Amino acid sequence: MEKTFSLWKQQCLGKVDLSRKSCVDEDIEHVVFLLNSCEEYFTTSSCSGRLTLIDGVTDSCGVQKQNCVWLFVSHQKCKPEDLMCGLARSRADAVLKFEPFVLHVQCRQLKDAQLLHSVAVNSGFRNSGLTVSKTGKILMAVRSTHGMEVPLTNNGILMVDHEYIHFLTKIANQKMEENLRRIQRFHQNFQSAMSRGQVQKQQIPNTDISEELQNPSLRLMEETQEEKSKDRKNKRTVYKQKKSGDELQQTDACCADGSCGELDLEDCLDLFS
Amino acid sequence: MEKTFSLWKQQCLGKVDLSRKSCVDEDIEHVVFLLNSCEEYFTTSSCSGRLTLIDGVTDSCGVQKQNCVWLFVSHQKCKPEDLMCGLARSRADAVLKFEPFVLHVQCRQLKDAQLLHSVAVNSGFRNSGLTVSKTGKILMAVRSTHGMEVPLTNNGILMVDHEYIHFLTKIANQKMEENLRRIQRFHQNFQSAMSRGQVQKQQIPNTDISEELQNPSLRLMEETQEEKSKDRKNKRTVYKQKKSGDELQQTDACCADGSCGELDLEDCLDLFS
Repeated sequence: MEKTFSLWKQQCLGKVDLSRKSCVDEDIEHVVFLLNSCEEYFTTSSCSGRLTLIDGVTDSCGVQKQNCVWLFVSHQKCKPEDLMCGLARSRADAVLKFEPFVLHVQCRQLKDAQLLHSVAVNSGFRNSGLTVSKTGKILMAVRSTHGMEVPLTNNGILMVDHEYIHFLTKIANQKMEENLRRIQRFHQNFQSAMSRGQVQKQQIPNTDISEELQNPSLRLMEETQEEKSKDRKNKRTVYKQKKSGDELQQTDACCADGSCGELDLEDCLDLFS
Repeated sequence: MEKTFSLWKQQCLGKVDLSRKSCVDEDIEHVVFLLNSCEEYFTTSSCSGRLTLIDGVTDSCGVQKQNCVWLFVSHQKCKPEDLMCGLARSRADAVLKFEPFVLHVQCRQLKDAQLLHSVAVNSGFRNSGLTVSKTGKILMAVRSTHGMEVPLTNNGILMVDHEYIHFLTKIANQKMEENLRRIQRFHQNFQSAMSRGQVQKQQIPNTDISEELQNPSLRLMEETQEEKSKDRKNKRTVYKQKKSGDELQQTDACCADGSCGELDLEDCLDLFS
């Protein structure tokens, strides 16, 4: 498995980038570089986050069909005029979407994926999760739900006024800023986790590193006091236990089949993250 | 582990439902029942999907703070009047959200989680993923991205007109209908997968069932021709390989670090599902 993983990594990172842009987004170059420099990981796809205005026929399922027109796309903040220009070209049903940072990482072993998953969730990417394929590949998808999706035109007719577009642009830009903050948090938390892993390796030779990394006394970078008050869910460090009963009552979740004691990482799986 | 899982299951299903509703949503009772009747699984939390109108102060990060007022919530379709009534009570920043079906399932073994993950992705729940905790618990979260989030008031002032509310209600209801269709698909696909597993057990005693279930000749329920044209990504059966190169170029993903051959389930992890 070790040899296979190294081979997979070599093959993957040696291939041509098949994305539209053919390169990694600037705002996450440091994240991708950091992960790929670790022998336990390699990235397979990524996006720093984006604002898109897509024009397409919305079928009776409320789903935009595949053959859509991209009226506007940006990985940075935008201005109301950008959206207005795009909307002026709408001939069908235009929808504005903000989609946050997403990253797929192949991991050498399950414990590596668990560590990365923990870092992702604690950095605010609460919809992250693993995939274990039948070929033995272990993938960790870093995902968040802090998005936005707003229908704006119907058969090419604008359904809102310019004041609303200004209002929407401001909110979309705020989400983009929060997205960048979470990316930084993820980068720093991951660096901390890996550094502590290295320190442990040097101090205690021949110790199973996965057990060391699971030591609850290890702390990852926590947010500043200011940030903590903004998002209470990010107060948790990686291995701190969540009080499932209290938390369930405080979350937005309206349904649960019951709570199970002793939950740890999976406690972070609030129904609606 | 076997004995522990059974104990966890017994403890979990025996506990009081801590959700607001204190019961499982009607539209997914059959799904929850089916999963809990299998010895390999038990559900820990669920929601059939919901429309919510929440009033709260949006901070500078674009995130609604925790102390919000719920102006409206429904697990079924709604009428424009429902939203207008709720919006009339807004004193801050009201946001309409549609959140699709979500389900957390604890699994006995990794292969059980892999099967369920595969079923979920093929049923349209493409943001599904696993969590493996340090206590050995394996959780599968069934998740989708086909949501909607629309800011509607600013400091209690409605930013759109009634015509837009009608338009939005129609789209939200369409998403709710599609959500129900995906739930049915998930239920049927899971039933098929489990039935085939049972047939294999009876026909070939002492065979490792996990290997049998991974036989690519096994087919899950596919969508009708009509449904197929609506969502090409759901054409895939569980174990069919995706041509990573071609698919990456056709998806909405704007960034990829490269494609890796031999991908199977993880190929379903399009960046933007």
